[in-house]
Amino acid sequence: MRRFGTNATAVKRVLTNANMSKTVLNAQYAVRGAVVIRAMEIKEQLAENPSDFDFDKIVMCNIGNPQELGQKPPTFPRQVLAGCLYPPLLEQNIFPSDVVEKAETILADTPSRSIGAYTHSQGLQSCRQFVADFIQNRDGVDCDPANIFLTDGASPGIKYVLQACISGPEHGCLTPIPQYPLYSGSVALLNGSLLGYKLDEDNGWSMDITEMDRLATESKAKGINPRCLVVINPGNPTGNSLDRDAIRDCVQLAKDHNLVILADEVYQENIYGDKPFVSFRSVLDSMGEGYNNVELASFHSVSKGVFGECGLRGGYMELRNIHDEGKEQLYKLASISLCSNTAGQVTTGVMCSLPKKGDASYESHTAETKAQYESLVRRSKIVSEKINQIEGISCQTVLGAMYAFPRVTIPLKAQEAAKAKGMAPDLFYAVSLLENAGICVVPGSGFGQADGTYHFRTTILPPEDEMEAVCARLADFHENFTADYS
Amino acid sequence: MRRFGTNATAVKRVLTNANMSKTVLNAQYAVRGAVVIRAMEIKEQLAENPSDFDFDKIVMCNIGNPQELGQKPPTFPRQVLAGCLYPPLLEQNIFPSDVVEKAETILADTPSRSIGAYTHSQGLQSCRQFVADFIQNRDGVDCDPANIFLTDGASPGIKYVLQACISGPEHGCLTPIPQYPLYSGSVALLNGSLLGYKLDEDNGWSMDITEMDRLATESKAKGINPRCLVVINPGNPTGNSLDRDAIRDCVQLAKDHNLVILADEVYQENIYGDKPFVSFRSVLDSMGEGYNNVELASFHSVSKGVFGECGLRGGYMELRNIHDEGKEQLYKLASISLCSNTAGQVTTGVMCSLPKKGDASYESHTAETKAQYESLVRRSKIVSEKINQIEGISCQTVLGAMYAFPRVTIPLKAQEAAKAKGMAPDLFYAVSLLENAGICVVPGSGFGQADGTYHFRTTILPPEDEMEAVCARLADFHENFTADYS
Repeated sequence: MRRFGTNATAVKRVLTNANMSKTVLNAQYAVRGAVVIRAMEIKEQLAENPSDFDFDKIVMCNIGNPQELGQKPPTFPRQVLAGCLYPPLLEQNIFPSDVVEKAETILADTPSRSIGAYTHSQGLQSCRQFVADFIQNRDGVDCDPANIFLTDGASPGIKYVLQACISGPEHGCLTPIPQYPLYSGSVALLNGSLLGYKLDEDNGWSMDITEMDRLATESKAKGINPRCLVVINPGNPTGNSLDRDAIRDCVQLAKDHNLVILADEVYQENIYGDKPFVSFRSVLDSMGEGYNNVELASFHSVSKGVFGECGLRGGYMELRNIHDEGKEQLYKLASISLCSNTAGQVTTGVMCSLPKKGDASYESHTAETKAQYESLVRRSKIVSEKINQIEGISCQTVLGAMYAFPRVTIPLKAQEAAKAKGMAPDLFYAVSLLENAGICVVPGSGFGQADGTYHFRTTILPPEDEMEAVCARLADFHENFTADYS
Repeated sequence: MRRFGTNATAVKRVLTNANMSKTVLNAQYAVRGAVVIRAMEIKEQLAENPSDFDFDKIVMCNIGNPQELGQKPPTFPRQVLAGCLYPPLLEQNIFPSDVVEKAETILADTPSRSIGAYTHSQGLQSCRQFVADFIQNRDGVDCDPANIFLTDGASPGIKYVLQACISGPEHGCLTPIPQYPLYSGSVALLNGSLLGYKLDEDNGWSMDITEMDRLATESKAKGINPRCLVVINPGNPTGNSLDRDAIRDCVQLAKDHNLVILADEVYQENIYGDKPFVSFRSVLDSMGEGYNNVELASFHSVSKGVFGECGLRGGYMELRNIHDEGKEQLYKLASISLCSNTAGQVTTGVMCSLPKKGDASYESHTAETKAQYESLVRRSKIVSEKINQIEGISCQTVLGAMYAFPRVTIPLKAQEAAKAKGMAPDLFYAVSLLENAGICVVPGSGFGQADGTYHFRTTILPPEDEMEAVCARLADFHENFTADYS
């Protein structure tokens, strides 16, 4: 064989820890990190040797993935999807009339009645119109489908905006601590600077706008220019919910520091207390013309809410006050991926244009989703109440989203045992919880937490009839863990 | 309202050409670039004033999007999808038995029989097993589902590997010229160095391995370390097809220069001549143990072939000889996006496990896809033959993929007219073709071309009964264009 180059020596592989891109190595994503990988191993071991552990299955509380834990998908959007994918079904009297009508509306917006073609890079016009109407009705504002991007879940839109804002360590991204690690991970991949603003646990994980202002100002002095402000509302992992005044403060901060706001509002339907969801879009528009230059990108998804259609990967980004030059570049980023998947586009369109009173599916769809919602409300209460009854764990009320982020007292001896194993104390705790009680949660360090405090994130998603048992297993585990290391 | 910061002056928006990330501004993606944006404007204008142009519709030849031009989706995968999305259909005697069986196999691999949950970040085990079996049968090699990543089309896998290889200008990516601009665009976003190796147009767009070796060696001398080698086979936009010897040369080059091979094989079913498709995987494995360290990632998609299911965004990446450390990081990148869309996963699984002789859908599926394939073969011949009959345009034989990349003589006066408008000559030509003949193609500069030569990429996808007319319009246009600028 002919040889090439001048150094035809032993191959040094590129994709190793020594040689790979440092940005990739530095990015962290704990939601599917070490604890979850261990959980998958245990699952396999359990299948082979059920007696190896003190439990017969693992409860996956690491991720907001409702259908993994038995939540049923809503019928109406699934019927529309089946009709869009195989249109002969629409002529066979199988589906209610509004299903047929919705599917036909969407198919009429495709070339040759098929959702198998690449769409416009922002998504099908019909589905973007459904989204625009939804925002208009929700907020009482004008909304143009030209400002909507349909995306594979909410993540791609978030990545596009971050990519346009951040391209080196001199660019900062104000991000809540704790946060959903998509943000820290993406900023690390872009080689940017994460500027973590701490949420106040003792005040229901509320924002401290003075601290955020100080952080932005001090970062500038250090040569890091804050370029964007991430707000997750309702909060992930904290479960808090922002009122109008807090959002006004954020808009003002963005104006004064020239920040693009990324409003992660994927949990807007998941509200369990008496604080209603308030959108950034509605607040920004209410503040008048002086704020017409405050750049806002808002995100929503079909993965959460009462749909829980995580696997279908549908979502949208709405742009507000973004310069045409910026829109053009975001369009280019979307077009490099050609378009988001059409099943997700259809699901997003349907989520934003549900059956109305009088429509054939209205009663059944409403009953299904109401039951789903009420069950989430009950489970949110069970989780925070039961966890708060455990000595050594405290948990803020879950006002929104799908998670609790309780604070755990980890005994000093356990901290030392963790250190001996080269593990963070909260990772050590989470792995112990997994191996002893079969409950898979994510350590707080994956989201960020105040120094010297330890947390974990758990979803509120186990089925209602298992929820009390899961909480009891957690309580038993924590008692034993504390005793073992006292 | 309270003010923040010390510089509460007029807002300077971040997302403008002046302030945005330079990496984003520098990335180009012509396949949905200026010509296509103009085509969309003309479409709208045509809808309002049909007499504004000399044609009644635009033929979109810019992108390999078969269903946009009327290609019918295959029935079997669409029935499986409908069944997976709305499982009650599987109990109603609507679908053939093999559709029900396939859907049930996939549903059995999901929690609570629903594809609405996030899957493993690499995709459903059942569908990865279908892919592994497909590769095993195609190449006669062992293939482990643990090395398969199911992705939203082929693009995300390509981006993950590039991201792991390239993180600054000191990292080079050997890429064919002309190339599919996903590569140049992604390398620009990663702030890396594109190392374009020229394909030889006069020899059917073949590779010149000596030139590639020289390029790699010279780049190193300039401080740019080549880290990966992109090969598109069959070629996009060139339509060439590589034989075993050319692939062996690439593997040797990768070994000697320590390059990760990205084998873009999404057109592997689109072979129109007598050169069969040869996979990188089969060649690499045939070269023996001395090549066990040559890193290979191969890509395939449901968007091309005879499925043409672009909108569903399904595809896979197979890893070979990638170190566990590398796999772990690629898994992390996939997990930051959680998982690919499940409709795409199912379609990919089905593409890799088609009905077999004796199965209920075998005859009908085979007939559908055979007709589809034969039509593509005929169209590939019509395009290159008809284009070659035009004085001033020459076109290599289309051996594979879905495109022709003809070379056009652009008169000097037209080049000057383009210059006066600040346009590249081939962009000027493509815009003129669009505005005068309603044919939307992509200028050669979007893919790269030898200095002083001009090309465009057109698909071979217009319906057979329109194809001759489209070619005739192109011929008329070119004659007039040449006359106007002589």
